Amino acid sequence: MGTIGTILLSEIAGTAMLTLMGGGVVANNILGKTKGKDGGWLMVNFGWGLAVFVGVYTAFKTGAHINPAVTTGLLMSEAAEYAPGISITLGTTVTYYIAEVIGAFIGAVLAWLVYKNHYDQEKDPGTILGTFSTGPEIRSYGWNLVTEIIATFVLVFVIIMFGNTPDKLGPLAVALLVLAIGASLGGPTGYAINPARDLGPRLAHAVLPIPNKGGSDWAYSWVPIAGPLIGGSLAGLFSLIYF
Amino acid sequence: MGTIGTILLSEIAGTAMLTLMGGGVVANNILGKTKGKDGGWLMVNFGWGLAVFVGVYTAFKTGAHINPAVTTGLLMSEAAEYAPGISITLGTTVTYYIAEVIGAFIGAVLAWLVYKNHYDQEKDPGTILGTFSTGPEIRSYGWNLVTEIIATFVLVFVIIMFGNTPDKLGPLAVALLVLAIGASLGGPTGYAINPARDLGPRLAHAVLPIPNKGGSDWAYSWVPIAGPLIGGSLAGLFSLIYF
Amino acid sequence: MGTIGTILLSEIAGTAMLTLMGGGVVANNILGKTKGKDGGWLMVNFGWGLAVFVGVYTAFKTGAHINPAVTTGLLMSEAAEYAPGISITLGTTVTYYIAEVIGAFIGAVLAWLVYKNHYDQEKDPGTILGTFSTGPEIRSYGWNLVTEIIATFVLVFVIIMFGNTPDKLGPLAVALLVLAIGASLGGPTGYAINPARDLGPRLAHAVLPIPNKGGSDWAYSWVPIAGPLIGGSLAGLFSLIYF
Amino acid sequence: MGTIGTILLSEIAGTAMLTLMGGGVVANNILGKTKGKDGGWLMVNFGWGLAVFVGVYTAFKTGAHINPAVTTGLLMSEAAEYAPGISITLGTTVTYYIAEVIGAFIGAVLAWLVYKNHYDQEKDPGTILGTFSTGPEIRSYGWNLVTEIIATFVLVFVIIMFGNTPDKLGPLAVALLVLAIGASLGGPTGYAINPARDLGPRLAHAVLPIPNKGGSDWAYSWVPIAGPLIGGSLAGLFSLIYF
Repeated sequence: MGTIGTILLSEIAGTAMLTLMGGGVVANNILGKTKGKDGGWLMVNFGWGLAVFVGVYTAFKTGAHINPAVTTGLLMSEAAEYAPGISITLGTTVTYYIAEVIGAFIGAVLAWLVYKNHYDQEKDPGTILGTFSTGPEIRSYGWNLVTEIIATFVLVFVIIMFGNTPDKLGPLAVALLVLAIGASLGGPTGYAINPARDLGPRLAHAVLPIPNKGGSDWAYSWVPIAGPLIGGSLAGLFSLIYF
Repeated sequence: MGTIGTILLSEIAGTAMLTLMGGGVVANNILGKTKGKDGGWLMVNFGWGLAVFVGVYTAFKTGAHINPAVTTGLLMSEAAEYAPGISITLGTTVTYYIAEVIGAFIGAVLAWLVYKNHYDQEKDPGTILGTFSTGPEIRSYGWNLVTEIIATFVLVFVIIMFGNTPDKLGPLAVALLVLAIGASLGGPTGYAINPARDLGPRLAHAVLPIPNKGGSDWAYSWVPIAGPLIGGSLAGLFSLIYF
Repeated sequence: MGTIGTILLSEIAGTAMLTLMGGGVVANNILGKTKGKDGGWLMVNFGWGLAVFVGVYTAFKTGAHINPAVTTGLLMSEAAEYAPGISITLGTTVTYYIAEVIGAFIGAVLAWLVYKNHYDQEKDPGTILGTFSTGPEIRSYGWNLVTEIIATFVLVFVIIMFGNTPDKLGPLAVALLVLAIGASLGGPTGYAINPARDLGPRLAHAVLPIPNKGGSDWAYSWVPIAGPLIGGSLAGLFSLIYF
Repeated sequence: MGTIGTILLSEIAGTAMLTLMGGGVVANNILGKTKGKDGGWLMVNFGWGLAVFVGVYTAFKTGAHINPAVTTGLLMSEAAEYAPGISITLGTTVTYYIAEVIGAFIGAVLAWLVYKNHYDQEKDPGTILGTFSTGPEIRSYGWNLVTEIIATFVLVFVIIMFGNTPDKLGPLAVALLVLAIGASLGGPTGYAINPARDLGPRLAHAVLPIPNKGGSDWAYSWVPIAGPLIGGSLAGLFSLIYF
């Protein structure tokens, strides 16, 4: 398989794992009659942190971006490669983006299959959408954007730092970082910090045959795309000054 | 001791540790008058994740399958051996299966001894059964099967990935993986993801002298056997394409 | 400093850290007006698990037993030494035991100083005693003993296994093991699993000037001494057969 | 960049990360309408523990003090250097202190930006101040000081022990230590254990334009400065005897 094919397979699989596990933990927390109903925000933080853990192992071969903000941050940081043997070109960059969105869509469909019975009995459209995409608690596009920018800056900058320190916990370090961002910075917008993680499941929400599902809130959808891309870019640029 | 004897001792001990600790955390969460009463789903996820941690250290010498779905997945993935020095034959395969179910039975008996006073005072048959075996929140055999297949696919596929990445956290990685599956995919069926973990304790439930225990729900018992075996097999097969 | 002096200093310091942190998390959970009031059983499990983490780093030089059941288990397992350079003799064994109880007493006094204002306002004698020593939810000495024996067997046997596997997480592994035992097996008796951890703080409870403190429940005090010593011994003996 | 410039940049960035994440988790827990509202004390402990994790990676190059009590403890322990290549002088010591306070101020401002909408709607001055600085549950300066001294002693002494043991988990070990101190010793005063972590955000609280913010409780502000400095110094001195 060529480089493009490897990126596609690996990043689709990794990002599908990400949104399967991440969408799953939110479904478990908020849909009706689940065993984890009202398990709480820390459970959600663990679920998403370890969703990254699982996704990173799955997409290990291609550097496990599983997030366009990470791809963009690496581009801006003038990294030598995206992963060992994968050079940074327009072709590889676009392939990462596309694979990440496709994977995120597939993972959301899988999470829906896992919780099919529970979706079928759910009456509240907001609850249903909340298991797919992020949304703000207080709608205010400007400040919601600020929140996503800062949270993604932390994500991408610290990931870059992981590569510059002798202590390497590998996927566990990234999992703990995402857990931290959720607990600390996820309160206002639900920490998309990843355009694919939000867009892929939102597309799945739009097409899946879920009773009572309501609209997909496309009016907000640009925030969890623009914020993470800006935050990731700033982190990449800042890393150039920082070293 | 020969290979068969080693597998028996090691996998019985490891799987007994698994269901002692796993059954224990559920008992702590749902039986009456315990210190961990209503400790919540995240506590249960930690308990089961670390039950695997404990079981894996105990059964280290034989590769610590402690789960027929893992044994089956390795078989399907065309692994070279079940563990260093243990080749894949009909004899070793069947020995793993038998040891896993016997161990799971013993662990459930031990967990019952630990919580003996609390079982004796429990009035609700569903609560009692829930500390032994899994059961669905919304009964629907087809979809319950889908849930177990997907959850076990994640388990076995990511375990196979652990062996293909340079970052090796060892038993901690498996513990975190199981914690993740519980938080994210355990909502509908209670994540058996292991036929022995469900069948062994169900047999223990059937024979132990527990007041008010009710039936052992044999009608559902095939789902947490078939689902994990199918999911584990698919993970093993998919790994052949993936690399 | 000679070997006896080193054991005394190191194990007193380590066990003091253990009961300072462990007593602290229970005080935080159950005394009035604390920030962690009703933080839940998982918080208590994390607190005690990491209390061991802190104690193990502190007593690293002498093998960090900080628990007579561990000392006894190593003795029974025919270990070569208690720690690098510390041979197993009557003198070193007794020194470990004495240091562990003294340290546990000191740690309980320190935890009382940390929560002094909260102890002074507490009206319930059972709550006060619960921050020092363990006690059963359903009093039944025989079954309480069984619970402590099984829980300590798991502790000591898996610690012995840590030394026989290539994956060494060090103090983190022991912390996770204790977290697991608390979540899974701590429900009936509060998991003493360590005679010093129970006796030292009980002595502190008996002598400290705490308003409304009530009796120290000496009638139960033999259970968290005998149970862990029996469980630790059985684990040591079983390890001889197991390898 | 010279040594002084490197310390400034690195410790400002690291301490800013610390109070951004730490202030964030408290805001998420107690401000109105957040997704993590009432997430509980264990969530706060994870948030602060991992805030240190993030801060330590960020300030790795300069030893990641991000806390004047750590700087002071290293000074007292007669450490050879503050970090590889950074000698202990009056100039470097003062630079650490200044950078830590500036960084903590900046992080608090960033956390305020992340939760801007939520601050604007908050009516309770005590809640607002609680997201910036620490405060005691039962005001009693002497005992509050004792609590901070003991908690910081544990922090700094165990950090010194990390450097003397073969098991090195790196930033994860420090994160778990801070999580432990929060769960176990944070109940009475909210565990400042770091003068900069308290003073920097308190200054930010004093100057930021937050509706309904009330006073900054300067009467208490000396406790979370003096306690950590005393506790850190004692830990440094005790380490001289301990080895």
